[in-house]
Amino acid sequence: MNDARTVYLDHAATTPMTDVAVEAMTAHLREVGNASSLHASGRRARRVIEESRETVAQALGCRPGEVVFTSGGTEADNLAVKGLFWSRRDGDPRRTRVLSTAVEHHAVLDPLEWLAEHEGAEVEMLPVDHDGRLRVDALRAAVERDPASVALITVMWANNEVGTLQPIDEVVAIAAEHGIPVHTDAVQAVGATPVDFAASGVDALSLSGHKVGGPQGVGALVVRREVELTPQLHGGGQERDVRSGTLDVPAIAGFAAAVELAVKQQADHAARLAGLRDELVAAVRRAVPDAVLNGDPVDRLPGNVHLSFPGCEGDSLLMLLDARGIECSTGSACSAGVPQPSHVLLGMGRSSDEARSSLRFSLGHTSTAADVAAVAEAIGPCVERARAAHV
Amino acid sequence: MNDARTVYLDHAATTPMTDVAVEAMTAHLREVGNASSLHASGRRARRVIEESRETVAQALGCRPGEVVFTSGGTEADNLAVKGLFWSRRDGDPRRTRVLSTAVEHHAVLDPLEWLAEHEGAEVEMLPVDHDGRLRVDALRAAVERDPASVALITVMWANNEVGTLQPIDEVVAIAAEHGIPVHTDAVQAVGATPVDFAASGVDALSLSGHKVGGPQGVGALVVRREVELTPQLHGGGQERDVRSGTLDVPAIAGFAAAVELAVKQQADHAARLAGLRDELVAAVRRAVPDAVLNGDPVDRLPGNVHLSFPGCEGDSLLMLLDARGIECSTGSACSAGVPQPSHVLLGMGRSSDEARSSLRFSLGHTSTAADVAAVAEAIGPCVERARAAHV
Repeated sequence: MNDARTVYLDHAATTPMTDVAVEAMTAHLREVGNASSLHASGRRARRVIEESRETVAQALGCRPGEVVFTSGGTEADNLAVKGLFWSRRDGDPRRTRVLSTAVEHHAVLDPLEWLAEHEGAEVEMLPVDHDGRLRVDALRAAVERDPASVALITVMWANNEVGTLQPIDEVVAIAAEHGIPVHTDAVQAVGATPVDFAASGVDALSLSGHKVGGPQGVGALVVRREVELTPQLHGGGQERDVRSGTLDVPAIAGFAAAVELAVKQQADHAARLAGLRDELVAAVRRAVPDAVLNGDPVDRLPGNVHLSFPGCEGDSLLMLLDARGIECSTGSACSAGVPQPSHVLLGMGRSSDEARSSLRFSLGHTSTAADVAAVAEAIGPCVERARAAHV
Repeated sequence: MNDARTVYLDHAATTPMTDVAVEAMTAHLREVGNASSLHASGRRARRVIEESRETVAQALGCRPGEVVFTSGGTEADNLAVKGLFWSRRDGDPRRTRVLSTAVEHHAVLDPLEWLAEHEGAEVEMLPVDHDGRLRVDALRAAVERDPASVALITVMWANNEVGTLQPIDEVVAIAAEHGIPVHTDAVQAVGATPVDFAASGVDALSLSGHKVGGPQGVGALVVRREVELTPQLHGGGQERDVRSGTLDVPAIAGFAAAVELAVKQQADHAARLAGLRDELVAAVRRAVPDAVLNGDPVDRLPGNVHLSFPGCEGDSLLMLLDARGIECSTGSACSAGVPQPSHVLLGMGRSSDEARSSLRFSLGHTSTAADVAAVAEAIGPCVERARAAHV
């Protein structure tokens, strides 16, 4: 367990496993069995996998056969983006365009960049508004310019940095007019906001275990049965040939238990977190009146608080808070120790300085009013010191 | 735990986790921390990862920076084969040939097939002898025909079906004359036979957690620092940009503990298993005198017993043994319920019927003399029944 004094407010990076997930996982750690083996131990392992698949399907509103287990959200995103691109281009060589947004996670952005450099994809990163919401008019214009050339559209369900929910319904409606498949990275959305695969109309949806109280190293791509997907990991042909590799029985059992609980408790969880979040925002603003809340003020993840503190370096602030036992994130990618301003904030029209001055607090299932109180007490002095250091 | 009466002889498919691995893994299941986060919890997670990396490096004779954690052997093989191919072809467009063997695991074969179909690779599956050993003369001839066109050579360290060790030293010597990188799938070799990365001279080596007493869903590609590898999973840039995805802290800790123990105990373990294996072969031959041991009789994995039973279907035999609580494998790929004769046996020059009549018993750290005795007692009657059914 973490130090009792730690105020962990980085649940969007990873959240502690829930008890049911730990129990479901550890129940299988000492069992032996490869789910592809034909003997009794293999069949028992297979049963765990298929029951887990049904549990996940039930929670997400899809059919069990539509759940493809992966090693996590990154693999699910890579499989969706590349698998759809290859399969659609193989079906019609004119389909080389991929439409996405300027605020996607790196697990979508980087495969897109690779497809552009390596596979001849023409990737269009569509603009977002000041709150980080996709400009649907821009998507419509991009599609209608030449619908037959679009291989896929990929738009995240909810932004991991600023928490803004994307208009997935509108994306699906536009795509459906032209038979274009839609993928959505729902890694931050599942368990935080209602996610129903069938009702959403998307063709593929990524989720991750360790963002919903399950284990790290496991996730899933939900993909409509009718959708063809070129595999990315080739081998034994597990997961109906779409994804090879020995199935990780304990992790998948833990993942299914976590998804089930997260979805069951979603409404109560969201209401509780939204309450804490509003308190946290109010408390910060009392201490630092010029702090700016980023992201959509209403259509946002219940646990996300993303703030800019003018005149501060987010990194300094993060370290000052960390020294007081408060753990959060700048929300910006940090490459080789060199802090880059967040592409999300830049995409939302902020300057580099504004982008660098921001901090993400993300609440989760272990968050309490005491955590909020700790931030309320610490944020004023920390901002003051960070501003002094910045000058 | 499995039923006490189960005689588990399918350790090559997956072996139970060792106590140290379970303990190392469960110690971290309730901790929170993303190893990419900058705060104290993130730094603690990072410490676990880097200590695990050092442990694995120490055990395998490589530098810590050469260990790339993956979701398992299949991902490691895919990354090595595709990553080397892309990177070498990008360096020189003439490098389109890939040399391999007819007896590789599907996690190598299937990526090669995909590279051939999709990326213009010319894949040459080199012949093996009657025992499944690469014909080194054929490799030499293939290389020397046009060394500048070879992107990479990939040859497994030990065969997963028949247990034959491959002449990696000779492969490396030939490749080195022409500066061609060598990858080896050492998934079955680590812990069973001495594997020293630096001493072997290979450029990349795959291993898997659940074959060495570690968890499923984790493995590694060891890759020399000087070797360029095009990534396959793009995203957050973890694992020095070669492999993205949140690092699975508990699984990596369990993996490292398992690798460390497996390598430390390798010599004793191999001697013990070889003794049991020889007993098992002798006992089977007493009961079924015309049973044929496949694979190299000397240069083989200590725990592998691969036998053909003339006049039997391996699948029937497997099921008859399973009904008596003895779990083994046909060693053949089973696609959509239709048993295919093993490409390994066919590659070794066996007929389809011969290939279909075989069974693999694979011993591991929980195997005992009682397991061997159980097979000795059951095999005669089971073969008799299988033969009767086959007529």
